[in-house]
Formats: sequence, C-alpha cells, structure tokens
Amino acid sequence: MKKIYLDNAATSWPKPGEMVKAMKYFFEEIGCSPGRGGYECSLKAGRIVLEARLKLSEFFNIPAAEQVIFTQNVTHSLNFAIKGLLAEGDHVITTCMEHNAVIRPLRRLENEGIIEISFLPCNEEGLLSCDNIEQYIKSNTKMLIVTHASNVTGSLMPVERLGNIAKKNSIIFVLDAAQTAGVYSIDFQKLNLDLLAFTGHKGLLGPPGTGGFAISKRAAKEMKTLIEGGTGSISDSEYQPDFLPDKFESGTLNVAGIAGLKASVDFIMNEGLQTIREHELNLLEILYQGLKNIRGINVYGPKSLNLRTPTISITAEGCDVGEMSYNLDREHGIMVRSGLHCAPLAHKTIGTFPEGTLRFSIGCFNTEEEVHYVLKCLQKMKI
Amino acid sequence: MKKIYLDNAATSWPKPGEMVKAMKYFFEEIGCSPGRGGYECSLKAGRIVLEARLKLSEFFNIPAAEQVIFTQNVTHSLNFAIKGLLAEGDHVITTCMEHNAVIRPLRRLENEGIIEISFLPCNEEGLLSCDNIEQYIKSNTKMLIVTHASNVTGSLMPVERLGNIAKKNSIIFVLDAAQTAGVYSIDFQKLNLDLLAFTGHKGLLGPPGTGGFAISKRAAKEMKTLIEGGTGSISDSEYQPDFLPDKFESGTLNVAGIAGLKASVDFIMNEGLQTIREHELNLLEILYQGLKNIRGINVYGPKSLNLRTPTISITAEGCDVGEMSYNLDREHGIMVRSGLHCAPLAHKTIGTFPEGTLRFSIGCFNTEEEVHYVLKCLQKMKI
Repeated sequence: MKKIYLDNAATSWPKPGEMVKAMKYFFEEIGCSPGRGGYECSLKAGRIVLEARLKLSEFFNIPAAEQVIFTQNVTHSLNFAIKGLLAEGDHVITTCMEHNAVIRPLRRLENEGIIEISFLPCNEEGLLSCDNIEQYIKSNTKMLIVTHASNVTGSLMPVERLGNIAKKNSIIFVLDAAQTAGVYSIDFQKLNLDLLAFTGHKGLLGPPGTGGFAISKRAAKEMKTLIEGGTGSISDSEYQPDFLPDKFESGTLNVAGIAGLKASVDFIMNEGLQTIREHELNLLEILYQGLKNIRGINVYGPKSLNLRTPTISITAEGCDVGEMSYNLDREHGIMVRSGLHCAPLAHKTIGTFPEGTLRFSIGCFNTEEEVHYVLKCLQKMKI
Repeated sequence: MKKIYLDNAATSWPKPGEMVKAMKYFFEEIGCSPGRGGYECSLKAGRIVLEARLKLSEFFNIPAAEQVIFTQNVTHSLNFAIKGLLAEGDHVITTCMEHNAVIRPLRRLENEGIIEISFLPCNEEGLLSCDNIEQYIKSNTKMLIVTHASNVTGSLMPVERLGNIAKKNSIIFVLDAAQTAGVYSIDFQKLNLDLLAFTGHKGLLGPPGTGGFAISKRAAKEMKTLIEGGTGSISDSEYQPDFLPDKFESGTLNVAGIAGLKASVDFIMNEGLQTIREHELNLLEILYQGLKNIRGINVYGPKSLNLRTPTISITAEGCDVGEMSYNLDREHGIMVRSGLHCAPLAHKTIGTFPEGTLRFSIGCFNTEEEVHYVLKCLQKMKI
C-alpha cells in the first residue's frame, strides 16, 4: 500500500536527500567535536557549526551569527526564554492558542507564585479576537510570548502588530515559530523580536534533535542560562562565560544534526521560500475545499487560507478521531494525527476539548495527487 | 597523510558502521515522530525509543526502562540533576577532579546563595586522597556528585566505596559517567546510584546530540524538571506529567540519534565490554610506557593503569602544548587535544594550571600500530 504522510506539523518527512548526505559525510569524514584551536578536523567541525549559524542568520535576518543558539528542540528554546527572562513579580501576556511548550513552563512559574499570566482571547477560528491588546499591558508586564501559528488550526497570529506593540511598550517579544520556520518569511529585525524560538525538524526540513533560538543582544544580556557546563571557552574559569553563543550552549552540540540542518536550509533557500509556500497553499486549498464538501465533517481554523499554515483540523459527526486516524492508516496508508496535539487550551478555544481533532498537515513534498486520494478515501469512509 | 584520531575523550571516532546505517534507515524508512496511538509508522518510531531505553537498562542494570531519560548530552543530564534536586540550604560534596559540567552549575547555585560545596581532595595523580570521606558529611548534605573518571588524567574514582557511604548516610549519589559509559561496567543498582549521567557520543559510540540519565524512583519523585512542554501524554493538562520518562522529556526527542545510539550499544554488547576494555588497556600500556621513556615529557595521572581510563595527559619541558598539538596534527596527522579540557580544578590539582596539558585519549578502534607511530613521532620532535 502506498503511504501518504500528512503529519508534517509533528515532524516533516521525507527530508531532502542533501540532509542525509551531509550527516553521513560528517560521520565518515569529520566525526570529531568542534574545538577552539586544536587539530584541523576539529576546526572543520567548528566551521560547520559556524556556517549553520551564518546560514540561519541570513535566513531569519539576524544581525550576527553568534546570536543564533542551538538547542535540542523548540521546547528547550522556549524554556530557556521563559525561565531565563522571567523573575518574581513579572506579568506575561500570551494567547489562547499556545502549545504546551509555552503553557506548561508558564503554568509552572505561575504555580510557584513567580509570575502572573494574561491570555489574549482568540475566536473559534483560532484567530486573535482582541482589538485593543494594550489594555492587557500592566506596569509589571515583562514579556509577550505567542505562537506564530497554531499547531491545531494553523491560524497565524498578527505578529507584525504584536511586535510593534511590544516595542512601543518596551516588552520582551518572544515568538514560537515551531509551525512556521522554514515555510514563512520571518524577519527577526523587522518583527522587533527579542527571541525567535525555532525547531529544526519541521518546516526547516532538518533532523530531529536540532533547533534553537535567535536572541537580541539586549535580551541576551538580561537572560540567565538554564544550563552551565563546558563551552570550550575560558576553560580556566569555574563560571559560565557571559558572551554569545557560549553563554547558552554547554556540552557537546549535535554537530551531525547541525550539519544536516544546514543542508536542509540550503535546500529551502535554493527552492525558494515563496515557491514552497505557494505549493503548500495550493494543496491546502484543494484539501480545505474538499473537506468542506464532505457531509458530516467539521473543518476548523480560519476560513481565509492566507491566515493559516497548511494544517487542517477536522472532526466528523459520530466518529471518534482516534479511530478515524487508525482506519485511515490501516486501510488507506494515510498518516495523520488525532487527539489534542499537546495544545489543550487551543481545543478549548475552538470547542474541540477534550475529544480533540483529526489533523492533516501538509509538507513541501506532498503532491496534488496525494491530496485528491485522501479526499476520495474520506468520502468513502462511513461518517 | 594517514590520520590518527586520539581524541576519544572528546568524542569517539570512527563510529560503528551499524550506527550510521541505523540513522539512515530511520530517515529513509520511518522518519516520523513517536506518538501515543496514531499511525503505524509513529508506533515504530516509539518502539525504537523504547528499545533504546530497554537496551540501556540492560547495559547499566537499571530496574525499569522508563527510568532511562534521554537528553542532548551529559551536561544537560548533570544540570537536570543538580538544579532539579538541590534546594536552598543544601550542602553538596564533590571532588577536585570534576569537569565544568559539574563545577559550573554548582558554582552558579553557590553564587546565588542556594548551596554550599565541599571538595574532596585529590592527589597529584588525580586520585581521591581522603580516607575519611564521612568527615565531610554534614546534617544538610544532600548530594554526593562525582565524576567516574577524570577527563584530564583518566583517574578512576572509588565509586563502590562512595556509593556505600552515600547509601549509609542517605545522601543522593550522582555519577558523571561521561568518560566511562561504554568502556567500564557500570551497575546502577550495585553502585547504589540515584542518578547516572551518561553521554551517547563518547564510549557508547553513538552520535552527538544523544545522552541521558538513569534515575532511581526515589530521586525521580523528588527531582523537579528543568524543562516542561509537550510530552504526548495527558495532553488535556496544562501541567507537566509527573511520571517517568515524560516528566523529564519534553518536546521532540532526537529519534534518529537514539536509533543510532541503540545500534552502537548493540555493537558494544556484541563485541563485549571486557574485550574493548582489554584492548584499550593494552594500547594504554604501550603508550604510557613509551611516553615515560621520552626525555623531557612529564606524564600525569595514576601510575597504576588499572586505576585509569585510556586517557593520558602530558606536558613537555619548554614546549607549549598548543603548539605541540598543532605540530602533531600538521606534520604527522595525529589528532590530540591541548589545553584545560574544561576542567580547571583538575589542572590545579595535578599542577598543570593554567597552561594545561596535551591529552591522548584512546578509543576502541585505535591500533597498536597507531600507538607505536605516535611514540615514534614524539621521539623525533624537539622537546
């Protein structure tokens, strides 16, 4: 049975052939750890990491390569931001569409009596439904942290507007780009971002175990690190260095993964971000219209496709989404995810809590033919 | 020029062919993220992670697979242990041979007035020089955290003795096995460990970006996590789950890396830990005796080779270690590391601070021929 992968919001698949090649090359020809000074091969490993930083700086328009920090995944990046920047008495503004990677660390700090949280309301489409965001700002508001796009409905947040408000009110602006990095143009400087948290293995088409954040110099100065350890720098000191990127990068990096991530970003830049977005939007439109026309299926998220990523959540009357997902895979080879997608608040917002949804998420390697096949299978299913 | 890699204490190289194959297979045939329920391929990814946990449980004699937690590297594991277990007013005992992965997080907490630290003295060979360890224990002593072996001198710590003392005095015992996991038999239960921090890319012969810790159920209950986020479990909750392994594993795991790590541990178990250790000890003996016989070279670390890993630090009279390392690589293709190796305290202990040492670290793929060649090159160098 032909397999159709539509779970790109969890991780993208397949990966560019160049990515696997770059990792294989690393293991076979380089292999060693980056080191300051030392032997040639170690310098080569160091250059791979630097080139990846430079590539991501170019991709996201980040002023300097050292402002790109590598982490294991976007969740770690968001925890670094939340726990490194927030202190006792701070107030945080976020939205009702966040992933648990934002909600859970915030709830932890709230529970410990350290911070208070305000949630910007969103409507049933998962879009921000609040005109006057500034009414939420208080004298102790330290941070505005929002997802760029919901992983449940694909709804895009008005990040330009939010960035301007944050700048005007001197609030730290943190963007969770888990669902958008690699598919949408994200301009770190234009958006007035203080911290851009990204993951390597979704839209950026890199391997799992890669991700990171870009940080403004202002925020980097203020932010504590969560992890101290060997950095290969100022090795005579028993204290963590305070310069970038070492302040936030301790222990051996996932150099092989970073080599793969760089190859994937190269692939995206060669294909063109706009080309990928247009391809995905085209498939989104076919899938969206097709789903709307199947009786018994409820489609969630923004009606205007320009306001969403190629992720669609549905429910079907009288059907359990887990069972639907199981049957789609077993009977038709269609891989989609069902449930709450680690975003309980988003489901409460759109009215699908606690049953959850069946989620289709398109990636850059999906085809029109695949989408038509999916629609045909759904039409045949007893809903 | 033939290249000889002798920096296995930083990262092991080459890796078993099986490791690269397992990662390639993952990317080409599986690719997706582990998920609870869902489609078959996602279950396969979940099985890979579970099998790796089971394999490591067997390898380290850990009671249950869920007590194995995956992290990015051993530094992250140690930070989880230190910051998750220590609280205001606690006293910690460690040694004078620790890596900055232990020292820096401890110094951070000490600096913030949270903990106090006692250092067990070590002698010039880097061996524990204290008979009565219990004299360091106070009423508020919470943790004993020690490296299994120094990354500078290779000195092994008396972990059985330390484990018994910790158990007798109800102190949490944390072992940093960065230099030993994969080469020495480590029995989690026999050593009375509460937390075993390991890295995947050194002795375990896995890829960078892998590592983790094994944790006792008692410590797991008490330990806070450093990172909250999506776990794929109890997705209806805005709070982190409190069960293993999810409590400590948030966001997408490095599944490809974990697949590679499992293949590497399989390789080690097939070869036999004892066989690898004997091979390395044999090379160590040749290198050690050879180095001792070269005029002008000072060899550090235990004289008894059974008390060390196959890592040897040297200095040479009138020579800069950085320059020596550079020349060995450029003129003879020998890759070794020079400097402080992220362990300033260890160098203070053995008397090589702040210049550092030239470090040779043998791995399981090195050969007698290579070691003889290294000795020949060193004899020819003007020291």
